[in-house]
Amino acid sequence: MTIRLYDLAGANPALRFSPYCFRTKLALLHKGLDFETVPWRFTDKSRIAETGQERVPVIVDGKRWVNDSWSIALYLDETYPARPKLFPDAQSRNYARFLNSWCDWSVNPAIRPLAVRHVFDAIDEKDKAYFRESREKQLGMKIEAIGADQVAAAAGFASALKPAEIMLADHRFLHGAEPGYGDYALFGSLLWPFAVCPKDPIDYVSNVGKWFERMMGRFDSWAARQPTVRSLA
Amino acid sequence: MTIRLYDLAGANPALRFSPYCFRTKLALLHKGLDFETVPWRFTDKSRIAETGQERVPVIVDGKRWVNDSWSIALYLDETYPARPKLFPDAQSRNYARFLNSWCDWSVNPAIRPLAVRHVFDAIDEKDKAYFRESREKQLGMKIEAIGADQVAAAAGFASALKPAEIMLADHRFLHGAEPGYGDYALFGSLLWPFAVCPKDPIDYVSNVGKWFERMMGRFDSWAARQPTVRSLA
Repeated sequence: MTIRLYDLAGANPALRFSPYCFRTKLALLHKGLDFETVPWRFTDKSRIAETGQERVPVIVDGKRWVNDSWSIALYLDETYPARPKLFPDAQSRNYARFLNSWCDWSVNPAIRPLAVRHVFDAIDEKDKAYFRESREKQLGMKIEAIGADQVAAAAGFASALKPAEIMLADHRFLHGAEPGYGDYALFGSLLWPFAVCPKDPIDYVSNVGKWFERMMGRFDSWAARQPTVRSLA
Repeated sequence: MTIRLYDLAGANPALRFSPYCFRTKLALLHKGLDFETVPWRFTDKSRIAETGQERVPVIVDGKRWVNDSWSIALYLDETYPARPKLFPDAQSRNYARFLNSWCDWSVNPAIRPLAVRHVFDAIDEKDKAYFRESREKQLGMKIEAIGADQVAAAAGFASALKPAEIMLADHRFLHGAEPGYGDYALFGSLLWPFAVCPKDPIDYVSNVGKWFERMMGRFDSWAARQPTVRSLA
């Protein structure tokens, strides 16, 4: 049975850029589970009302609806224990949980100055009023002012990534020899500006950039095949 | 055989505040190894010349000198494999390594605005010129200007701790049911402002604050018995 994923999309439905939805897609790829994505817009709240909340990712597995990327990852490991594990043991789950939290609270805030204005440009007209109001409230400034200083934004981005930059100097992946869910969390975060920025934001000379390229090659180069504003232009 | 640790000290040799030396002391306690600390000042570089570098922690184990807190932790696990392991498996070592790096590059920079001026006040007269010059170069401002805005400093400190704050909402320790080396890294970071700030900087209402209290109770309340500028006043 194919799992259905409600996946945040731009005005062009082929453009997908949510870091949280990327986590779920990478988790599904890791598990080797069939899935199809349904393009979903910020204002399509009624389509996921079954979950009692208003955000994606949301998966539908048979009759079961599950929301929240972390809850979905736990659900997939519990429901499909014979498939490759996202969390082989308690330490790797705790490590992944911390990396997930670090992405949410340290990395993603540093990406917003790079990405938010381009997300605004890329989303459907019907989403723009909602997006403007929610992001301007969250960040305390106008969309047009977010990331106005792109030199500072790039420095903040590099600074936020520093713990991973050091780690990846002598580890192929954050989880070691093979990627784990924490790698998917960070990769999902970076795929967000990678998808929406007119100029590729990845520094390929850095350790994180080299790791990003390794991640791009996983699952038969799945991520490398995903559309970006550059490939769609 | 008792291991000797060169441990950064203030003008009052009982005052110890280095986050990196705390990591090593907590690692030695975890291993259950006997150790004695030797108070060391920033300018006592010749006393650790054997290591070919100028910073503590440095341990002397018989004839073996080892420097750098991470290298010391690896050395202790390799040399005393029958003692409780700091790194029971590859995932816990990778997790600890990431937490260590996160403390170095995200947490410690956010603590400097709270702690640096008080370190300056607490250190020996012979260390002050070195400390002023190195820290003013590192931070690009006068010691007296660092942390001048204490409201912003406190906000930056809480923001840097957010990934741990979320993690500790449903985990007793960062490593799970029991503390691991990553817990010692963060605890060492927090013991630094805890030792030198005239006002206790820990928010005991937060999840991190409650975890800090659990850490204070470990090893027969070892950390709670360490002097601070407040207990020495």
